[in-house]
Amino acid sequence: MSSAQTNVPALLAGDRRALARLITIVENRGPEARAIMKEVYRHTGKAHLIGITGSPGVGKSTLVDALTAELRKAGKTVGIIAVDPTSPFTGGAILGDRIRMQGVGLDEGVFIRSLATRGHLGGLSRATSDVIRLMDAFGKDIVIIETVGAGQAEVEIVKLAQTTIVVTVPGLGDDVQAIKAGILEIGDLFVVNKADHEGADRAVNELELMLSLDPEQGGWRPPIVRTIARDGTGLPELAEKVGAHLDHLRESGRLAEKNQATSQSELREIVTARAGARILGAATASGLLPEMVARVASREVDPYSAAEEILRRHGPTAGTDETGDGSDD
Amino acid sequence: MSSAQTNVPALLAGDRRALARLITIVENRGPEARAIMKEVYRHTGKAHLIGITGSPGVGKSTLVDALTAELRKAGKTVGIIAVDPTSPFTGGAILGDRIRMQGVGLDEGVFIRSLATRGHLGGLSRATSDVIRLMDAFGKDIVIIETVGAGQAEVEIVKLAQTTIVVTVPGLGDDVQAIKAGILEIGDLFVVNKADHEGADRAVNELELMLSLDPEQGGWRPPIVRTIARDGTGLPELAEKVGAHLDHLRESGRLAEKNQATSQSELREIVTARAGARILGAATASGLLPEMVARVASREVDPYSAAEEILRRHGPTAGTDETGDGSDD
Repeated sequence: MSSAQTNVPALLAGDRRALARLITIVENRGPEARAIMKEVYRHTGKAHLIGITGSPGVGKSTLVDALTAELRKAGKTVGIIAVDPTSPFTGGAILGDRIRMQGVGLDEGVFIRSLATRGHLGGLSRATSDVIRLMDAFGKDIVIIETVGAGQAEVEIVKLAQTTIVVTVPGLGDDVQAIKAGILEIGDLFVVNKADHEGADRAVNELELMLSLDPEQGGWRPPIVRTIARDGTGLPELAEKVGAHLDHLRESGRLAEKNQATSQSELREIVTARAGARILGAATASGLLPEMVARVASREVDPYSAAEEILRRHGPTAGTDETGDGSDD
Repeated sequence: MSSAQTNVPALLAGDRRALARLITIVENRGPEARAIMKEVYRHTGKAHLIGITGSPGVGKSTLVDALTAELRKAGKTVGIIAVDPTSPFTGGAILGDRIRMQGVGLDEGVFIRSLATRGHLGGLSRATSDVIRLMDAFGKDIVIIETVGAGQAEVEIVKLAQTTIVVTVPGLGDDVQAIKAGILEIGDLFVVNKADHEGADRAVNELELMLSLDPEQGGWRPPIVRTIARDGTGLPELAEKVGAHLDHLRESGRLAEKNQATSQSELREIVTARAGARILGAATASGLLPEMVARVASREVDPYSAAEEILRRHGPTAGTDETGDGSDD
């Protein structure tokens, strides 16, 4: 057992320092990350995973803190993961952490961690998935995944959640437009935050209109909740709707479906990444990869034909059909 | 030869409609995309690829148009690719297209195309790479890749360029902070746009200070250019610096290095995606994938062990070493 794995029993026993240590190891994507996740995985699947997304400035962090306080009143323990796919540029996640540590972060029943991009986006999404599991295995009843923005990268991360909350504010014309264009489908709950600001009725009405145009998904009609996160207005209702959505997922069988879908996409990702690493490792060792890189760079051969040659020599054994997979990227 | 490929000779002969048609096919990532790129690839490698990035609101589009006008004066033909990784949420790229069609877009020597996320980000980056090549093979002297924001997703796309311009504006404290945190390394040229606004001197000074702390990369010291894109101020200087950077890349041998690096990462991506598609196809056909998905979903087996089992049965033949590759995502 590696030194990293010795932290796993402590994690399962509820040791916060073990949790913090394991998150760091998993975040760094070192060789031990996989061994840890193998140990931890069977202790997961109990937490309710909530994703929160929305444009910058809608008050997501404040809302997460207020929702956490509300859930704590009901005796639930909460893990918060603040994910910032843009962070090479802002460093915002770290700052947010420090400020929050003075609020809900002082509560023993709450564990907050920020994750930022190190390297490429795929890695961040994988790290987030593993950190969710560590918090789940640690025993958190609820894990909240909060993203900094609402771009495509953030949406891919929010897809890890079981219940997704989309946050907007009055007067953010662009944002409502934005919701139209694609975010509508991912929202299980909608929040109009800063509901004391002018235009709140209009924002709610616009959302209602848009949602009325969308077919109900499996018997769940996404509710719209007005909140003022700063003073807690609307938070009891939001907490109640979050619980109602989990009940709905359980009763309708959609929780099991989501779980299957998550397992499927995760498995596909891991198989693809490792197959690539193996083949490229072999092609580097045989000298074929550097040779092909040089030929592609000199335009002697195109990258697709070069890839085919590498797969022919080092790839999975033939017999598998791949006609028409020009779209396999 | 497929119907799609029949457009390739027309593309090479300079037919704009063939270019437009081929871009659409490549953007849709259909099975014909690969066949087209195989035909086109050997005609590429001639265009100078310029990437432009910076926070929203710094005037990137206006700057791109002004730079294009300047390059046209020097007789260069220009392709512009406006990439929006966040577009499921904004639809901004399309709007921008329509407006621009009334400006530089009316010039026969300019071809503008917007690309938005369809599906996941990896696909967008691949599509952008292929569209660059279509414009290159078409004969554009310069291809400008412009991103909507400056997040991690955008940076991955900008890495396709040979010369990267980072744009900021006076008074954007956050942005300068942002540049500190990671964007500094990717900039070959820095532009302080809206240089008639208050605080331009300070923005330039801050940039100069930051750049002075950074070691020079291979003898190139990134210049800082002040522009007012709206009226063309500073654009002759910017165009000159862009040309100087290309000269530097050529003379220092860094152009060949960049070309090698691009070929290498592209080849790795294609091999990985196709190896994954093949193995997952075989594992679906054999029933192993659905079986493993069910066992992962029920927590009977962890995703990493399940992936290993799939690779053992359908993966590349053994003998390749993969110790310590916990970080292969």
